[in-house]
Amino acid sequence: VREFAALETVFRHNGRLPSFVTIPPGDDMAEVALGDGPAAPRVLVAADQVIEGRHVRLGEDLALIARKAVARNVSDVAAMAARPFATVATVVLRPTSSDHDARELLEALRASADIFGCPLVGGDLATHADPKAPIVVSVTILARPAHASGRVVTRRGSREGDGIYVTGTIGGSLDADGRGRHLTFEPRVTEALELHDLLGSSLHAMIDVSDGIGQDTAHLARNAERGDTTFALECDRIPITPGRDPSKALGDGEDYELLFTADREPPSRLSSGTPVTRIGRVERRSSDGLLVALETRHAVIDIANLGWEYGR
Amino acid sequence: VREFAALETVFRHNGRLPSFVTIPPGDDMAEVALGDGPAAPRVLVAADQVIEGRHVRLGEDLALIARKAVARNVSDVAAMAARPFATVATVVLRPTSSDHDARELLEALRASADIFGCPLVGGDLATHADPKAPIVVSVTILARPAHASGRVVTRRGSREGDGIYVTGTIGGSLDADGRGRHLTFEPRVTEALELHDLLGSSLHAMIDVSDGIGQDTAHLARNAERGDTTFALECDRIPITPGRDPSKALGDGEDYELLFTADREPPSRLSSGTPVTRIGRVERRSSDGLLVALETRHAVIDIANLGWEYGR
Repeated sequence: VREFAALETVFRHNGRLPSFVTIPPGDDMAEVALGDGPAAPRVLVAADQVIEGRHVRLGEDLALIARKAVARNVSDVAAMAARPFATVATVVLRPTSSDHDARELLEALRASADIFGCPLVGGDLATHADPKAPIVVSVTILARPAHASGRVVTRRGSREGDGIYVTGTIGGSLDADGRGRHLTFEPRVTEALELHDLLGSSLHAMIDVSDGIGQDTAHLARNAERGDTTFALECDRIPITPGRDPSKALGDGEDYELLFTADREPPSRLSSGTPVTRIGRVERRSSDGLLVALETRHAVIDIANLGWEYGR
Repeated sequence: VREFAALETVFRHNGRLPSFVTIPPGDDMAEVALGDGPAAPRVLVAADQVIEGRHVRLGEDLALIARKAVARNVSDVAAMAARPFATVATVVLRPTSSDHDARELLEALRASADIFGCPLVGGDLATHADPKAPIVVSVTILARPAHASGRVVTRRGSREGDGIYVTGTIGGSLDADGRGRHLTFEPRVTEALELHDLLGSSLHAMIDVSDGIGQDTAHLARNAERGDTTFALECDRIPITPGRDPSKALGDGEDYELLFTADREPPSRLSSGTPVTRIGRVERRSSDGLLVALETRHAVIDIANLGWEYGR
C-alpha cells in the first residue's frame, strides 16, 4: 500500500468541504471553526497511531508505546505552533493481555497526555480476537491557536529568499535494538510557540521531521507560495546527532524536530536551550532544478524522497 | 481484559482534570470548553473503533467496516443530543492489502462521514508488519451542542418517577452469518435533536444502546440523581425487532437506538417515523431491590449485566 498516495487521493474527493474547515487535510493538523466569521473560535485536530511491530518493536514496553502515541500527536501540534489541550485514544490489546497490562498502558496514556497539557478525556479499549495480533494505539489530539493573532503555522507559504531552519539535531532516532530517541523524544511545543512569538508572520511555514528531513522538506517545498522554487540544503550545515553516521542520519526520520522557513533570522538558541540551525535557503528553481537539493562538497543530490519508510 | 473496568480505573486517576473539561470521561462523549465562563463555546469529542474479527467478521466488506466505524461514533453524538461536525480516522491495513483496498476503505470513511454531516478532515493510514493481522479502523468524532441553550444530554440525572423510553426496536443486530443491522444501522441523530427540542430539560438522561438494553440501562441507573432508585423495565413493553426471538433480543446489543428517561411523555412517533416506546419507569428502590429489574409475567430478573460482550 502506498499510504501517502491513498490518503491524498481520498482527501482530494473532499473538494466540497464546508467553509468551517479552515485548514483542510494535508497539513500536520486540520483546523475547524466553531461558527461563522473570522472571529469564530477555532480547534485543530489530528490523529496518529502506533502499531506494534511497525512503529515500535514487538513486545515493547507498554508505557513507552503509550508515550510515543501521545508524543507523536503533540509533535503535530508543535508543527502548527499551536497549544495542545485534550486527547482521546483507542487501544487494541491482545486477548491474552492481562488487566495489569491494560491498566499500565492506559495509565501511561493518561499520564503522558497530562504531562503534555492535553488530558485524556475519552476513548475505547478492546481486544483482538487473534492472540498474536499486534497492539494498536490510536490517539487523536485537539489543539487551539496559541498566538494572539489566532494564526497557526502551516506547511504552506514558504517564499523565495527564505532561510530553512531546523531545531535540535537530526539522526539517531532508532538504535540497533529498536529503541532510542523515537521512544523518548520531547515534542517541540514550547520551541514552536517561542519561534512564532519571535518571528510572527516572518515564520512562513513549518513541519515536524517525522518522515525524514528530505521528505519533510519536500512537503514544505510542494506547498511553497510559488511552484518554481528549490529548497536547497547545505549538507555540512545540517546538525547531526553526535555519534551518528551523517550519511545515515538524514534518512533516519522520527527526529520530531521542527523544520521551518522564515525571512527573518531566529536566535541560534531558544529559551529551552534547544539550538536552531540555518541549514539552507529557498531559491528560484533553475530549468533543470530540483524540488529539494542537498548540496555536498562534491555534488547536488535530489533528496525529495529520502527518509524513513516503515516496513522498508 | 475487563475492558470497562480498566478504563474506569484509569479515568478515576484524572481527579484533577482542568475545569475546561465540562463533561468528564464516562459519558458517551466528553465535552471541553474553549475558554472560561459559561458562554465559552464547547466541543464534544469521542473515539471508537472497529476491529476485524471482533466487531465485524474477518474479511468483511471494507466499505461496511468503514461505515460502521463512523456510524458508531455518530450514534454517540446522538446519545448526547448533539450535532456531529467533523471526524478524523486512523486505519491499519494488512501489508498484503492493495492500493485499491486502501482507497476503497478510505473513500468509504470519507463518504460515510460526509453523509452524517461530519466531514473527514484528517487521519493516518498504515499497514501491519504481520500479513495476517486484522484491520483496525479508529474514528474520532467532534460534535457541538445543538440545543439553543447549549445543553447536551448526558447519562446523568434520571429521577424517581421518570419514564424510561426507547426508540425503534431492540434485537436482531447480528445475523447468523455475521452481518445484519450492526453494519447498516442509522444513528438516531435527528431523533435525538427532536426529542431534546420537544422535551427540553424534561429529557433527563440518554444513552445509545450498544452494549445491550440491560447494561445500558444500568449505565443510566448508576448515574441517576440519587443512588436509591431501581430502573424497572416491563418485558412485554420492550419493542422487539420483528422475527427476532424476544428471549435473545434483549441481550443482542448493537441496536444503536436511543434509551432515555424523561418526566414528560414524548410523542409515540417522531418526524422521521421512528417509534418511541415507554418501556419502564424509575422508582424508589426497595430494601432488596435491584439496579435494573426486568419484570416478566412470572418473575423479576436482574439484567444490569445483560448484554453483548465481544468475544463472549
